[in-house]
Amino acid sequence: MTRASRPSARATDDLIRAARSARRRAYAPYSGFHVGAAVLTGSGAVASGCNVENASFGLSICAERAAVHLAIAEGHRRLLAVAVSSGPAEATPCGACRQVLAEFGVRTVIIDRPRGDPLVFDLADLLAHPFAGTRLRRRS
Amino acid sequence: MTRASRPSARATDDLIRAARSARRRAYAPYSGFHVGAAVLTGSGAVASGCNVENASFGLSICAERAAVHLAIAEGHRRLLAVAVSSGPAEATPCGACRQVLAEFGVRTVIIDRPRGDPLVFDLADLLAHPFAGTRLRRRS
Amino acid sequence: MTRASRPSARATDDLIRAARSARRRAYAPYSGFHVGAAVLTGSGAVASGCNVENASFGLSICAERAAVHLAIAEGHRRLLAVAVSSGPAEATPCGACRQVLAEFGVRTVIIDRPRGDPLVFDLADLLAHPFAGTRLRRRS
Amino acid sequence: MTRASRPSARATDDLIRAARSARRRAYAPYSGFHVGAAVLTGSGAVASGCNVENASFGLSICAERAAVHLAIAEGHRRLLAVAVSSGPAEATPCGACRQVLAEFGVRTVIIDRPRGDPLVFDLADLLAHPFAGTRLRRRS
Repeated sequence: MTRASRPSARATDDLIRAARSARRRAYAPYSGFHVGAAVLTGSGAVASGCNVENASFGLSICAERAAVHLAIAEGHRRLLAVAVSSGPAEATPCGACRQVLAEFGVRTVIIDRPRGDPLVFDLADLLAHPFAGTRLRRRS
Repeated sequence: MTRASRPSARATDDLIRAARSARRRAYAPYSGFHVGAAVLTGSGAVASGCNVENASFGLSICAERAAVHLAIAEGHRRLLAVAVSSGPAEATPCGACRQVLAEFGVRTVIIDRPRGDPLVFDLADLLAHPFAGTRLRRRS
Repeated sequence: MTRASRPSARATDDLIRAARSARRRAYAPYSGFHVGAAVLTGSGAVASGCNVENASFGLSICAERAAVHLAIAEGHRRLLAVAVSSGPAEATPCGACRQVLAEFGVRTVIIDRPRGDPLVFDLADLLAHPFAGTRLRRRS
Repeated sequence: MTRASRPSARATDDLIRAARSARRRAYAPYSGFHVGAAVLTGSGAVASGCNVENASFGLSICAERAAVHLAIAEGHRRLLAVAVSSGPAEATPCGACRQVLAEFGVRTVIIDRPRGDPLVFDLADLLAHPFAGTRLRRRS
């Protein structure tokens, strides 16, 4: 992927704003770590989500995946980019989120930072040699 | 919980309709099993979701949890009921979804059926003696 | 299930001992909640596990599931009972674990307690009206 | 990490053999995709696991994580390498497994292939800029 395929500065700003807004809704009573995320779809729509933890830690969901799930539920199937905002402690997506982002073709990962410009990564670099479902027989 | 605290017939119909609609967006290429769900919040709002599968099966999310995550991202914290629609093969929520529903106080589980009235359960019966986070120290 | 099908007092003691021992290996730096579990297989073998948390909370695994996964990796396919030990804060299995226990036919859930006899439940009561894969087409 | 820190040819062979053996126990009725994995611990021990699927797809576990969980339950805390065997359809670990491998310091990922030498990756390349729990306050 070339940098040319990255979201415009304006789209990037919009995504970060949506991620920051979603972060305020995070339900993180067990970690105290609040995260928001927003995905940009192939048709230019934005869907956002926050982390939602659970008393059984393994049932917690990250913000990135919550945002993807919402975009899919809204009928989108191709996703272009994701922005992540986690406040003072900037963080990249965990491996699970990278895998879910890859399922729908996300190319660009934008990390909001408390100061300065956001960090921008290609998902292909964050999840090199990805596991893919192409060899699994599909049913629908 | 008494039956009196269950959603009204009208609210139940609305929830089922939302669950059916969400089901049409399900992303289930690996199982071919399409599910939609909708939750009713304490303030009367409805949030819906569908199952979103992944090539790495363990990263798949069920419709019920997707709907909960959306409600939380919209700022709700108390949930009352959930409706689930899975087409010809009616199904109750899996154990993971029951646990996530319990985190936010859901009391009523409504199962859409191809024919006849929906099935209605109390979550307290579907997840008796639940694991609870009350003994975990909270941070926020 | 009748009480007659429950493990003997001796088998129950063995399971609890194995669960307590596994608990000492728990990796729980994020919750501080240490849990061990042991499953009894159809052929009388015992497999145990502990919870293993992750910085990405959603990738944490509970002790009960870890024990099941080990039993399966050792070639067992039918499981009879599980014992859970969580120290001073006794706890029942979360919904996710109940679902995984059900996949392999577990019938009895034994909860170790700091004082007094263990609590014993039928899984059928802890996961009533379970979601089952019988309607999913199997491939192998 | 330099290549010098990779497992020896002999240790690599042992790991692959363990992964292949574990693969024969895989429980994969829903995908038909059988995978085995083995991890090498800091003290030279080997722990193996297989994928264990569930009717609720999201509760499925991959072989790599099952192997890690077993190593932890056996008291190990530092892991060096993992081998993965998936038969004719060679596959790299999914993002979730990469994150769990990273939690315990795994450096080398070995992919068994039906023909020819195994593929060998550095986990640092498969999960660049990892999400880490270092900023989360630990409790134990």
